[in-house]
Amino acid sequence: MEIDHLGIAVPRLDEALRLWTPILGGATAPPEEVPTQRVRVAFLEAGGSHVELLEPTDPASPVGRFLQERGGGLHHVAFRVPDVTAQLKALEREGYRLIDREARPGARGRRVGFVHPRSVGGVLVELVEAA
Amino acid sequence: MEIDHLGIAVPRLDEALRLWTPILGGATAPPEEVPTQRVRVAFLEAGGSHVELLEPTDPASPVGRFLQERGGGLHHVAFRVPDVTAQLKALEREGYRLIDREARPGARGRRVGFVHPRSVGGVLVELVEAA
Repeated sequence: MEIDHLGIAVPRLDEALRLWTPILGGATAPPEEVPTQRVRVAFLEAGGSHVELLEPTDPASPVGRFLQERGGGLHHVAFRVPDVTAQLKALEREGYRLIDREARPGARGRRVGFVHPRSVGGVLVELVEAA
Repeated sequence: MEIDHLGIAVPRLDEALRLWTPILGGATAPPEEVPTQRVRVAFLEAGGSHVELLEPTDPASPVGRFLQERGGGLHHVAFRVPDVTAQLKALEREGYRLIDREARPGARGRRVGFVHPRSVGGVLVELVEAA
């Protein structure tokens, strides 16, 4: 599987964009709200992959709680797959614990699903359907 | 800049390889010791990038301390650049705080340098010289 993007939790999207723009160049599109995850996100290009900056819109959301516990930093890694639901089911058969049993709507109009970090050594893994 | 690899801190390389192989396929080469960072590492292919699994060889090393404080998980992101020392100096001029002021030997015979996470919103950023 290919790395689609790397998610980074940030307290404020505007400050984070200022911080990352000298490294990666500016955002590929205006910030977008993802209601299902209670975040506002911006993507920056990084070769064939992207960095996704995530600002919580609700402090009780998963990204909001992550920020309170650890401060800003690396939050998840997303791999590109042809069919998210099929890949989730395949991982479940291999013994991985899932957060989502089926694909759901994510950022950029793409379908996504999450695997539980407890079954991947503390790493939150997202699967993203190829555009 | 392109994502060269994503570094993941793991307590045991053999267990981590078993965990990640169903997701990414096996390691690209036998594990390698990186004395300058007091870790043993293995790389798994992820499209044009890699996932690097890092097991500390010394609990007092930076990766050893990270594991004790947070448990296993996402540790750093590495971007590929043509000249690590030149890019470190350019980032320093932009106001970033560096861990390394010059490139030093890293895994896979490549020259690397680190930027301090405090100046990148809590994200440990590595620069890796293109192979």
